[in-house]
Amino acid sequence: MRHVDVLIIGGGPAGISAAIWCKRLGIDCLLLEEQSQLGGQLFNIFNEIIDYPGMRTKNGIEMQREMVKHFVEMDCLYEVNTKVLFIDERSKTVKVKKQAKEQEICYTYLILATGSSQRKLGVPGEQQMIDRGEVYSASADGERLKGKTVAIIGGGDRAFEGAHLLSSKAREVYLIHRSTRFKAREQYVERVISNPCIKVMTDTEVTAIHGDRHVTSIDLECKNKEYKSKNLLVDAALIRLGVAPNVDLIKGKVATAQNGLIVTDDVHQSSNPFIYAVGDACTTPLFSSISSSAGQGTIVAKHISNLLNEA
Amino acid sequence: MRHVDVLIIGGGPAGISAAIWCKRLGIDCLLLEEQSQLGGQLFNIFNEIIDYPGMRTKNGIEMQREMVKHFVEMDCLYEVNTKVLFIDERSKTVKVKKQAKEQEICYTYLILATGSSQRKLGVPGEQQMIDRGEVYSASADGERLKGKTVAIIGGGDRAFEGAHLLSSKAREVYLIHRSTRFKAREQYVERVISNPCIKVMTDTEVTAIHGDRHVTSIDLECKNKEYKSKNLLVDAALIRLGVAPNVDLIKGKVATAQNGLIVTDDVHQSSNPFIYAVGDACTTPLFSSISSSAGQGTIVAKHISNLLNEA
Repeated sequence: MRHVDVLIIGGGPAGISAAIWCKRLGIDCLLLEEQSQLGGQLFNIFNEIIDYPGMRTKNGIEMQREMVKHFVEMDCLYEVNTKVLFIDERSKTVKVKKQAKEQEICYTYLILATGSSQRKLGVPGEQQMIDRGEVYSASADGERLKGKTVAIIGGGDRAFEGAHLLSSKAREVYLIHRSTRFKAREQYVERVISNPCIKVMTDTEVTAIHGDRHVTSIDLECKNKEYKSKNLLVDAALIRLGVAPNVDLIKGKVATAQNGLIVTDDVHQSSNPFIYAVGDACTTPLFSSISSSAGQGTIVAKHISNLLNEA
Repeated sequence: MRHVDVLIIGGGPAGISAAIWCKRLGIDCLLLEEQSQLGGQLFNIFNEIIDYPGMRTKNGIEMQREMVKHFVEMDCLYEVNTKVLFIDERSKTVKVKKQAKEQEICYTYLILATGSSQRKLGVPGEQQMIDRGEVYSASADGERLKGKTVAIIGGGDRAFEGAHLLSSKAREVYLIHRSTRFKAREQYVERVISNPCIKVMTDTEVTAIHGDRHVTSIDLECKNKEYKSKNLLVDAALIRLGVAPNVDLIKGKVATAQNGLIVTDDVHQSSNPFIYAVGDACTTPLFSSISSSAGQGTIVAKHISNLLNEA
């Protein structure tokens, strides 16, 4: 069976940084990525990146290119299109699948850099909308959404910020939230509520998204007033339900917090001394960033290097 | 009196990152740097930087240029040649001196990014040697030290690694340490002790460095054997005593650990809720790096942004 000293699952900025640092420190290391390319959430950044000290890029793709270039120049070992099916923390083995082929890899230390994903509504039509590429950024897609009717679904900062940003561009903006309480900060909520161009609908669930070539309407269900169900004509639906850490693989095997994040100490060790976590799988969304993920990759590699040297 | 929401002391990578992020988050922020240029310890890196994910540079100067370029493009406010004389944590005021002019600046939150410095021997001739530029890197200055007699002073990893690296270039290498116990990892010590080109002198203090235009000899004092004092002819002296955090300004005002580092929590808050620390003033040398310093700057700015928004 193949053995590596350090096995990294996930090729976003945190995993890339951990791998670069493992290489730098002479550690036998392999990185596994489920997608066809390294980069993780960098592919979801459509704006200029102005907050990675020393390096500004036009967007996430350009950052991805620079990070992967560095990674490849350092001769870091990796496999893309490789899904981890199972982690057996007792035998310190993972079962992976690449195309149809399954194999097992044994590790001394495991670094989870699995990131987080946007939460979904889980309603009919949603996945088709995403697959058609109808995924908009409120800050970057103002021109594309100009004069359109837009529904923003969610009750947090990003939902309210998006509604505010689009209110000067779109023809109509609906902010739709399933509860009457909002997680967004108060100043964001006030700004939206006092904006005559935004209609806020609370206690309202989105139950379906319609449209063949593009979104044409959404179904709503109001929990306690006005109407029971309703079809609302919209040209775009922006789902802003926040993010959830990708921790299914490790559930029940290491301690997680109430928000689902893997609990780690200051060297990113989880409750299992051979399993570490870096990046958005262990970082609250508030503190998520490329630079902090890169910094975490550094710390975890340095710490593990020390353990391997002492052994 | 001038007031800023965030005052950053120190313009190395941690301070630069904190300032870029403060700007990014719309925080009123000022950075103070004692030297004439921002960059901190980047000026001491003479090798290629291969471990800042996404960005490789020839040396520290090139990294400094890119970081400062980014910082300046973001319109971050800063003052160089500005020494902080005193921090009054009760009135949340610092007294600073620029050229002959003193002024006071009031802060809501203070971020200490004062870094660390190489420990010195504190013996006659040492400062003159440094001022003449006789500061060598064992890895980068092999050619300059070819055929020379070199003394390396210290007992840690860097001293032993330096002795090992130079043993194949220099004519003679002395490793001089004041004790018989070494902090360096065992494998480093074994490699040096078994190397016939390196002479290890323990229980030996360096008491002076001689030389007008360049180092010509050092004085030694042996604590318990062979000789009492001795003059050793050498062409270069590499002082490898490790680093000490720059915490004089804050001594007694926030909790520090036994190694002198400022104690901080996971958002880099010190024992004083209005004082934060990032970078090498709070990071053990083992985990010191440009990328982790940059990541810490991100976290501290995001945390303070949240506090200011809630206020």
